[in-house]
Amino acid sequence: MMKNVAVIGFGQTKFGELWDKSLRDLASEAGMLALKDSGLEPEKIEALYIGSMAAGRFVGQEHISALAADHLGLNPIPATRTEAACASGATAFRQAVLAVASGKHDIVMASGVEKMTDLKTSEVTTALMGAADQEWEAGIGLTFPGLYALMARAHMAKYGTTLEQISSVSVINHKHGAKNKKAQYPYEITLEQAMNSQLVADPLRLMDCSPITDGAASVIVASEEIAKKLDPVWVLSVQQASDTIALHDRKSLTELAAAKIAAKKAYEEAGITANKMDVTEVHDCFSINEILSVEALAYCPEGRGGKFVQDGKVAVGGERPVNTTGGLKAGGHPVGATGIRQIGDIYLQLKGKSCNQVKGASAGLALNVGGSGATANLAILGRELRRK
Amino acid sequence: MMKNVAVIGFGQTKFGELWDKSLRDLASEAGMLALKDSGLEPEKIEALYIGSMAAGRFVGQEHISALAADHLGLNPIPATRTEAACASGATAFRQAVLAVASGKHDIVMASGVEKMTDLKTSEVTTALMGAADQEWEAGIGLTFPGLYALMARAHMAKYGTTLEQISSVSVINHKHGAKNKKAQYPYEITLEQAMNSQLVADPLRLMDCSPITDGAASVIVASEEIAKKLDPVWVLSVQQASDTIALHDRKSLTELAAAKIAAKKAYEEAGITANKMDVTEVHDCFSINEILSVEALAYCPEGRGGKFVQDGKVAVGGERPVNTTGGLKAGGHPVGATGIRQIGDIYLQLKGKSCNQVKGASAGLALNVGGSGATANLAILGRELRRK
Repeated sequence: MMKNVAVIGFGQTKFGELWDKSLRDLASEAGMLALKDSGLEPEKIEALYIGSMAAGRFVGQEHISALAADHLGLNPIPATRTEAACASGATAFRQAVLAVASGKHDIVMASGVEKMTDLKTSEVTTALMGAADQEWEAGIGLTFPGLYALMARAHMAKYGTTLEQISSVSVINHKHGAKNKKAQYPYEITLEQAMNSQLVADPLRLMDCSPITDGAASVIVASEEIAKKLDPVWVLSVQQASDTIALHDRKSLTELAAAKIAAKKAYEEAGITANKMDVTEVHDCFSINEILSVEALAYCPEGRGGKFVQDGKVAVGGERPVNTTGGLKAGGHPVGATGIRQIGDIYLQLKGKSCNQVKGASAGLALNVGGSGATANLAILGRELRRK
Repeated sequence: MMKNVAVIGFGQTKFGELWDKSLRDLASEAGMLALKDSGLEPEKIEALYIGSMAAGRFVGQEHISALAADHLGLNPIPATRTEAACASGATAFRQAVLAVASGKHDIVMASGVEKMTDLKTSEVTTALMGAADQEWEAGIGLTFPGLYALMARAHMAKYGTTLEQISSVSVINHKHGAKNKKAQYPYEITLEQAMNSQLVADPLRLMDCSPITDGAASVIVASEEIAKKLDPVWVLSVQQASDTIALHDRKSLTELAAAKIAAKKAYEEAGITANKMDVTEVHDCFSINEILSVEALAYCPEGRGGKFVQDGKVAVGGERPVNTTGGLKAGGHPVGATGIRQIGDIYLQLKGKSCNQVKGASAGLALNVGGSGATANLAILGRELRRK
């Protein structure tokens, strides 16, 4: 049996086009904010994990683990970068949790960072296709909007999901994000604006696509002995699962199979059911992915995700609030940072400190997805330590 | 207290310019060889960690964890890439060990892969500088031969280390590598050839520099309960430490400070001393690094590494055999694979199965270094389970 682990601090930079901040600036700023939130001195941190998808391609810098540890004044602790495309942040969180659960460390920082706006958009799109199958998908000209467009069209054909339902995802996330000062696009949009925005990859429009973003986020996790003296949020489960890297190798285009597997295991490990999730973060890199996600998490029956969103179940005040700070669409998607930002937003909700607070939230879930679903990383956090 | 962990299988591809094999081919081949060596079916593997420094820059492919799990038939297990420049392989091994030690998993595969020869040498050199400080070192034109040349000159100036001593490193490694069928350059070289080879970055010559290589390696680790039914090699310690990413920020250019810290902790954790290491793998990316390494490991006094090598102490048959299969210089250096290949070579020695066997070897050490020493990753393996 693993040891109990808690989140005891969180920090996040502004997400956006941050032309005055380098990758090391962002990683340092988020780390320092997390330290401040936890009340700990840097000397207490025993290891660092940092997620980044493609710092090598975006800014020519690999080895960002050593860079971040150095500039945060954490040396000589072990520092390791983890990567699983857009789920890189959550892999850093998972490794930090396992490092504490193993007994190897008591206090560990998990960060995520991406500095994407130094390249042209076409170059970023090419780099991001490294998350898919380079030889069999990128090689024939597919891009990520194209991959998710295929899933959207398949979902529409199989279940009758509508364009209005898909656009509703972004409308609700922008409504949530309007309250978030750290969001890249903190304003509301109308359904009409979303449905008439520029077509990117049919049926996905500009308002269905998360943006290119600079940003970083950090959380600090600790063992039960340390956390119980503070005001902790407990990690009830971390689960990760894999699917084929190429979309065409999947049995189905209309589900996130890896996310389903991870969710089932996480509910079991946490001893909790889907209907106890007061707050949820899902990976709306493209709006269709939020629809696929609420189905994978068993928040609604298969094929009914579109209606679930359109009916406002995912809005704050609804039955199952999702992406309460704007998600990837309004909040921004600095790829490697997103998984940590999600964990942090659940942490803030459970502490009663969110910019868009769900009253009395006591358990929450974050789902970070890599590629077109090849990696799914899921964490359940709770105010009560349920795991026996 | 962490649970005990053992290595129960190893596989390695040929290292070299493998123009008929892609990254996925290499990762799959090494993984299948490791499975075969362990006698396990793929279904028994519960998680995959895979080290790669720069697959994104070398072949445009990130998310290689999902790619490798997919093509090895391991789905839907968790698959995560780890990176710490040239120490990426050892970070994958360390995470695999921690995942088993935590109780989260019982059998885990740790792989490393790099496919480097699709780019021109100048492009590879640029990509590799991502392991150093991009803004403050690469930006002024430094390359990795240049960084290690600075350390070599400083060591020569401070301790009187000679060009002959530096060249001896490669001569001995090539002598060892001549017996290794998987080596990129399995032939002997003379001291005269080494000392007269082309100057790359004064004082380092072509024969002081490890090559650009394609290749992959995998090991399988397991919990004590599973391993004790097999013929295991125990993991007595894994330790990792960090130093400044930029060379100019160090207190000293003539030592691997992070490796020293990791070694001290590893000897303590394993309950063993340096003079019990029957076999050792160090990171001779440039020959000076083997000299710095034997000093960091306390195999000889500080400043005496050159003489220690020149006197043949590191040769098979000598006092403290190092890089018995050719090291990075003769064996090849597919960056992300090197750390796993090192662990594998210690495993083979302790099983009595090395191509250049040290008789009766019962304990060994592998030191994998990232960048110019910003990351040091160290493992001690043993036939006897010493840790209490």
